[in-house]
Amino acid sequence: MNDTTTTLPQGAAIPFTPTLPTVSTHIYPRGGLDVLSREEVARLRDASAGGLHDLLRRCALAVLTSGSASDDPRAAQELYPDFDIQVRQQDRGVRIELTNAPAMAFVDDRIIAGVAELLFAVVRDLAFTAIDLNGDEELNTSRGITDAVFRLLRNARVLQPSDPNLVVCWGGHSIGQEEYKYTKQVGYELGLRGMDICTGCGPGAMKGPMKGATIAHAKQRRRRSRYIGVTEPGIIAAESPNPIVNHLVIMPDIEKRLEAFVRMGHGIVVFPGGVGTAEEILYLLGILLREENAHLRFPLILTGPTGAAPYFEQIDRFIRLTLGEDAARLYEIIVADPARVAKRMDMGIRKVKDQRIAQKDSFFFNWGIEVPLEFQQPFVPTHELMAGLDLHHGRKPCDLAADLRRAFSGIVAGNVKEDGMRRIEAHGPFEIHGDPDIMQALDALLRAFVEQRRMKISGEYRPCYRVVG
Amino acid sequence: MNDTTTTLPQGAAIPFTPTLPTVSTHIYPRGGLDVLSREEVARLRDASAGGLHDLLRRCALAVLTSGSASDDPRAAQELYPDFDIQVRQQDRGVRIELTNAPAMAFVDDRIIAGVAELLFAVVRDLAFTAIDLNGDEELNTSRGITDAVFRLLRNARVLQPSDPNLVVCWGGHSIGQEEYKYTKQVGYELGLRGMDICTGCGPGAMKGPMKGATIAHAKQRRRRSRYIGVTEPGIIAAESPNPIVNHLVIMPDIEKRLEAFVRMGHGIVVFPGGVGTAEEILYLLGILLREENAHLRFPLILTGPTGAAPYFEQIDRFIRLTLGEDAARLYEIIVADPARVAKRMDMGIRKVKDQRIAQKDSFFFNWGIEVPLEFQQPFVPTHELMAGLDLHHGRKPCDLAADLRRAFSGIVAGNVKEDGMRRIEAHGPFEIHGDPDIMQALDALLRAFVEQRRMKISGEYRPCYRVVG
Amino acid sequence: MNDTTTTLPQGAAIPFTPTLPTVSTHIYPRGGLDVLSREEVARLRDASAGGLHDLLRRCALAVLTSGSASDDPRAAQELYPDFDIQVRQQDRGVRIELTNAPAMAFVDDRIIAGVAELLFAVVRDLAFTAIDLNGDEELNTSRGITDAVFRLLRNARVLQPSDPNLVVCWGGHSIGQEEYKYTKQVGYELGLRGMDICTGCGPGAMKGPMKGATIAHAKQRRRRSRYIGVTEPGIIAAESPNPIVNHLVIMPDIEKRLEAFVRMGHGIVVFPGGVGTAEEILYLLGILLREENAHLRFPLILTGPTGAAPYFEQIDRFIRLTLGEDAARLYEIIVADPARVAKRMDMGIRKVKDQRIAQKDSFFFNWGIEVPLEFQQPFVPTHELMAGLDLHHGRKPCDLAADLRRAFSGIVAGNVKEDGMRRIEAHGPFEIHGDPDIMQALDALLRAFVEQRRMKISGEYRPCYRVVG
Amino acid sequence: MNDTTTTLPQGAAIPFTPTLPTVSTHIYPRGGLDVLSREEVARLRDASAGGLHDLLRRCALAVLTSGSASDDPRAAQELYPDFDIQVRQQDRGVRIELTNAPAMAFVDDRIIAGVAELLFAVVRDLAFTAIDLNGDEELNTSRGITDAVFRLLRNARVLQPSDPNLVVCWGGHSIGQEEYKYTKQVGYELGLRGMDICTGCGPGAMKGPMKGATIAHAKQRRRRSRYIGVTEPGIIAAESPNPIVNHLVIMPDIEKRLEAFVRMGHGIVVFPGGVGTAEEILYLLGILLREENAHLRFPLILTGPTGAAPYFEQIDRFIRLTLGEDAARLYEIIVADPARVAKRMDMGIRKVKDQRIAQKDSFFFNWGIEVPLEFQQPFVPTHELMAGLDLHHGRKPCDLAADLRRAFSGIVAGNVKEDGMRRIEAHGPFEIHGDPDIMQALDALLRAFVEQRRMKISGEYRPCYRVVG
Repeated sequence: MNDTTTTLPQGAAIPFTPTLPTVSTHIYPRGGLDVLSREEVARLRDASAGGLHDLLRRCALAVLTSGSASDDPRAAQELYPDFDIQVRQQDRGVRIELTNAPAMAFVDDRIIAGVAELLFAVVRDLAFTAIDLNGDEELNTSRGITDAVFRLLRNARVLQPSDPNLVVCWGGHSIGQEEYKYTKQVGYELGLRGMDICTGCGPGAMKGPMKGATIAHAKQRRRRSRYIGVTEPGIIAAESPNPIVNHLVIMPDIEKRLEAFVRMGHGIVVFPGGVGTAEEILYLLGILLREENAHLRFPLILTGPTGAAPYFEQIDRFIRLTLGEDAARLYEIIVADPARVAKRMDMGIRKVKDQRIAQKDSFFFNWGIEVPLEFQQPFVPTHELMAGLDLHHGRKPCDLAADLRRAFSGIVAGNVKEDGMRRIEAHGPFEIHGDPDIMQALDALLRAFVEQRRMKISGEYRPCYRVVG
Repeated sequence: MNDTTTTLPQGAAIPFTPTLPTVSTHIYPRGGLDVLSREEVARLRDASAGGLHDLLRRCALAVLTSGSASDDPRAAQELYPDFDIQVRQQDRGVRIELTNAPAMAFVDDRIIAGVAELLFAVVRDLAFTAIDLNGDEELNTSRGITDAVFRLLRNARVLQPSDPNLVVCWGGHSIGQEEYKYTKQVGYELGLRGMDICTGCGPGAMKGPMKGATIAHAKQRRRRSRYIGVTEPGIIAAESPNPIVNHLVIMPDIEKRLEAFVRMGHGIVVFPGGVGTAEEILYLLGILLREENAHLRFPLILTGPTGAAPYFEQIDRFIRLTLGEDAARLYEIIVADPARVAKRMDMGIRKVKDQRIAQKDSFFFNWGIEVPLEFQQPFVPTHELMAGLDLHHGRKPCDLAADLRRAFSGIVAGNVKEDGMRRIEAHGPFEIHGDPDIMQALDALLRAFVEQRRMKISGEYRPCYRVVG
Repeated sequence: MNDTTTTLPQGAAIPFTPTLPTVSTHIYPRGGLDVLSREEVARLRDASAGGLHDLLRRCALAVLTSGSASDDPRAAQELYPDFDIQVRQQDRGVRIELTNAPAMAFVDDRIIAGVAELLFAVVRDLAFTAIDLNGDEELNTSRGITDAVFRLLRNARVLQPSDPNLVVCWGGHSIGQEEYKYTKQVGYELGLRGMDICTGCGPGAMKGPMKGATIAHAKQRRRRSRYIGVTEPGIIAAESPNPIVNHLVIMPDIEKRLEAFVRMGHGIVVFPGGVGTAEEILYLLGILLREENAHLRFPLILTGPTGAAPYFEQIDRFIRLTLGEDAARLYEIIVADPARVAKRMDMGIRKVKDQRIAQKDSFFFNWGIEVPLEFQQPFVPTHELMAGLDLHHGRKPCDLAADLRRAFSGIVAGNVKEDGMRRIEAHGPFEIHGDPDIMQALDALLRAFVEQRRMKISGEYRPCYRVVG
Repeated sequence: MNDTTTTLPQGAAIPFTPTLPTVSTHIYPRGGLDVLSREEVARLRDASAGGLHDLLRRCALAVLTSGSASDDPRAAQELYPDFDIQVRQQDRGVRIELTNAPAMAFVDDRIIAGVAELLFAVVRDLAFTAIDLNGDEELNTSRGITDAVFRLLRNARVLQPSDPNLVVCWGGHSIGQEEYKYTKQVGYELGLRGMDICTGCGPGAMKGPMKGATIAHAKQRRRRSRYIGVTEPGIIAAESPNPIVNHLVIMPDIEKRLEAFVRMGHGIVVFPGGVGTAEEILYLLGILLREENAHLRFPLILTGPTGAAPYFEQIDRFIRLTLGEDAARLYEIIVADPARVAKRMDMGIRKVKDQRIAQKDSFFFNWGIEVPLEFQQPFVPTHELMAGLDLHHGRKPCDLAADLRRAFSGIVAGNVKEDGMRRIEAHGPFEIHGDPDIMQALDALLRAFVEQRRMKISGEYRPCYRVVG
């Protein structure tokens, strides 16, 4: 990858040090964690010493190795087996003790300011989830979940009154060189036009747009830019925040993370990615296709370099076939034209702003979009639930989109996730009820992903389902 | 009063307008109230429409007439009988609707920025008390009350990490010209040395130090100064925030207000005042005399112009007689030397800073001081409770101070407060158990207050108690 | 005066100290003086040690006693006879040595930050005049003088690109209580509407508007306000900068000072004053009446409290009689309505802004106004020059205004200034050629000033001129 | 080059546009050029329309193509043959008119803020040189030249009082991939430790350290970093400022540029480079070896990746042979250890700070270092001057260093520069008087540069001089 140079200064240390150097120290938090009551400090200490501790340890390690080249979730854990983090109480407030922490996070034994910020963010968000959200009965309602998402984001100080300019970028984290360069170019063009970037905060399409925007913001002398990374405990270890992220938020789970993207972002750019990215597109279309959301402005652009054109053609064909032309009207596909992506997004966000003003909705949180409970709750692909999917023409597109997303999710699990593969071995392929053309299109899409190496399969691809009709 | 010039520009409008001009408008809050969840907005709206409404209306009117000359609590209510305030919900957040609001808070029909800030503070604190503290069972414990005080102050954004420099000023709100000028001079000298001011936010000794500090801060080119006013619903109407206050906090009651002073301030200056001021001194000595607090640095200076020397001599004599020499060691009396007051306070606060660092206590909230539950709960002077006081020599000074404060409070109530006077009429004078010399000293002090016109009595002063021994 | 309280903290020191306390110390300049070349430092040192030294000493003493109550020019010189100031060179830059400086400028032996700023301004401007303007041949041309005014103001960093909002206030420095209060009220109303204040920086009408604006700016939470004092060596000692001034400029002489007002200010408010104020009005009218300036927007408001109404009526009558109705159209007289003054000024400045934009003129310096050479050069009233004045009807109003201003200046000199009185004694009264009604009006105006105690005459007023016709 | 990605967004436009897109527009300057007198505007307009115009045009084009990949000086001129720039006068100030300017400097037809800043810097510095320095007789004296360097830098606003932290980086602008990466790593480590970067502002070793520091500053949340590029008209076209530069200064010639580096920088890092770099080292040693400068702290580090070790060994050997061990003590060679470079520089700069404080020298301009006139004046290598060099052992090292630098300069000219080659053709090889071992060492060094492709020679290398002894 051509941009590892930025991390080389750290990676460069490796040749000189056969065993990985570590630092043990303690730091005093800022940014909200510095003004806690005695009670809150005690709860934070208890939570971080109890069930939360392992989670905290893993997430902390992820940010302490921020910027390292590897994207292997276990790597950091194995490279720093003796690392530990403890939250201690003092009269004054909180003290965070780090034992055997990766030396790459330090300069002359002082922690790098930005890494410290990310570390405080980890403690802050895990504590908020453990203390403030834990046992909240409202989390069973759609309204309650949205409220929790809002409160967590506010507590993370990313909800600030300012003009709409936040572009969410989705796409694969292990994309090729050409595609990665393209994400940088798009980020650059967005940045030149004053837009801030929000991504999932790992490498690849999560990092490229931020890098490009950084250069552009510097050229435009824009000093208060936001590079927001929204992650969740299950992926932060695999997708360690890239070093540009200056606002890190750890949502409790995948669904709240998706909702955070949708409610915070003023527009979304989708780069090429794997099945995960396809799922995200279906998630968003499933929401935007709902009648309640029909009036909403929501710029959505699918884009990639020339080489990615086939990828988006397939996606487009699949959507038109299954969800219809109305669905295709919700997005725009732009190939190999970063400046056009930025111009269209800029124009789209102006309309979003007008609409928010007209509807007296806030700029920093899209209260107006309806996200139904079924999009807010996790989907675990059992044989029973998979058999319950209904992939026939004639359904409401938004409902079909929701089931397609689930089918997708289940098939991927059956092919590559440990849980899912075990289920298939035990009970045979999933039985899915659907029209043959839809199922064939689905199948074609998955095969294309495999061919384009966007989905990692060991051995040959074999469908893990059969169509029941 | 010699400083009404600053309010004259507004007061000046009066002669031209036989009926008081008003403005009806709506404003959108900032400073925390702008990033509320839908749920919070709904609760805020409900609270402000329900039981909270009258309280909100009164407090709002107090800040909207901020800076007017009168200190008559009813005046504003009667001058603006049609004033109303409503908190409305919108998608976007909160909208505050003002009907027939005093025109003096507006310029060309736009609300003055500082007045708007005070108004948002009123809504913010009343809402916090009504929503976050309401029904909190922890409020029955000392620890819980301290925690509530902390959370309210934090929510009001007055707890900020910065070097200790906050001087609390106590004293009468209706002092004479000479004493008022003196409070300005002390504020000026404190301000020259970089200290910020916190008071009860009304006129007199609440305003003088802030005025003086404002001039000094301007001369020292200090732009981010804090003029904190801490008040409570019962007195805000009578002691409308002076226009210099740039941080207003409304504590739920007198006791929490006193605790806020003690935990936020890094030192206290006491100017001449009435019985209220004497009670405050006894409150503070009662706390500082406790063994747990014996080690604490807490600069406490009693000061006034030459004419106020007798006042402090009496107070001093009374304290030495009742609480002993140890108590007298806790404060310093300085007469007619503003620069010396500031120098001594500056020196004292340096020691406070050293101690906080040594004990790893926070700079912005004094967790280390013990305030026992009996100082945190209101005292209602019934005959029974008054008879239970124990004002004999030989008790622990801190306990005696607590009972003296209560005796004081009760006697004042019996003399001038409606409730107390009714009780005396119905049941005869309070019976107080105490040593004769203590009771005589108490009596002498009260008579002196009356003579110095620091206590308003209609007719001749007649003690409302008798000593039982 | 009711606002001396702010200066009392310093004045208050006097009773305690029979001999005036002083401080000897050295300070290192900032604000431009800190980045000088070795060459410039040497020239500055030489200039301040040479002919400039006495001037520097007097001006420095004026700012070091800033805020003291006295307006007697000699007072400071006599109170601090041993005071001295030296500018020394070091590798690093400039060091200013103060010997026996007034202690009132220091807090615990550290100079007050704002006083230090004013002191640096004195050194900066005297040095600029002595080094950069000295020997500039262009100073004989109108264009060259304007350029010098511009460069001096720029060097003083008061020319900043920002929206037009600078109101120049003229008026007497020894006005009565009622008038002083009124200037504060006008300043307050101007400040509420976001306007900054520029005055001659002494007491009275120079100070009141700044005081009022300070309170208003604080209420509007306006932190970067400008209180510009423009003075010149001849008057700074008598009119020591009030403590609110945060930008001090010392122009080389009276005429350049007037030009600075006219080119920097976006509007002018004239309060009651003595003959000096009348001269200023005639100076301005003489400029605005010129054809080249006919198109210019220049809001000019004459205002005072009810008691000052006769004063402005006389002025107005005099102008109408001598300069005609066109001249009277250039100003507006507002009595006892501070808010209206501010509203009209606000409106006027909006038009100034529009005009500057339309004509692509800068906001911070009015290049567009023509100030002819005769207004830029000093007028010394000899018998010959006085006899050369031409005060007849029928002349161009602008020329008549210029001669009237000179007549005024000469008559005042003949009555109260040492030089002028000597001339009258030696050569008899001035002979002035003019129409009788004009001369009578002039005479009436002067007598009124004497009656209103706006002009200090020892003994009875006797005209020092006779009309030749 | 691996970092062209950042410029690709612009370069990327090329394939789509067979003829290069341009923009014609006008802009209004800021940053000092906005507060000019009418006189100055007129002189600026005249200067830019006269002899200065071609220079202005070339420099402007260089910054308008900032960040483009090419380092061919003529490229930009040929690619944009119709480009023109005019400085126009308006009442308001200056207006800059751009005709057929490279579209890559614009976003949606608005100039990129950073590019505009660089453009204003070009106008500002060329104008200062043309107007303020032109005809200054002091420029014939050493003191006068230093003063001019100071004034130009001050006018460019790069002399700011702040803690010493400015590291000057020298080295080749067309270095290899490995060396370029290394410069980024060193910049990264310097940046992590809070140091700012100053270079010659082209590509290669001029850009790498800034890129690395940018990433590090972002990670350390350092927002006010300085990336100073110091160039001169002869090289700006060939070495167009990289897009990170946020302070650009155009010195009048090579010698003043070198003096600017030496007086502004608090330490110097030398990366591998060609003969130019070797000359710079000799320039610096020639100064530091002077007795007057013997006491000075001046951290000087020669560093490169492992592959560059031989390069520095040769330099080191050459210096020890010719200038002796004392010269070698003035620098430190560090191979392949970026963190060590940064630590040593950090430590060295601390000592510089201590020394400046002790000697009361300024932090932002090293007045204390002596730069003799012969180092301030250009050297034109004629046969006569070359024959006058004295390269024998036994001379003062500082004088020998000066002559070595000249010899170097002449030999390079004789080999590769048009002027020099013509002279050799016409008059035969230079005759140089020197000890044989010195001359052989010189020869060996030059041959090594040729072998390492650090010096571009067409055909075989043939010495253009002969030793006379």
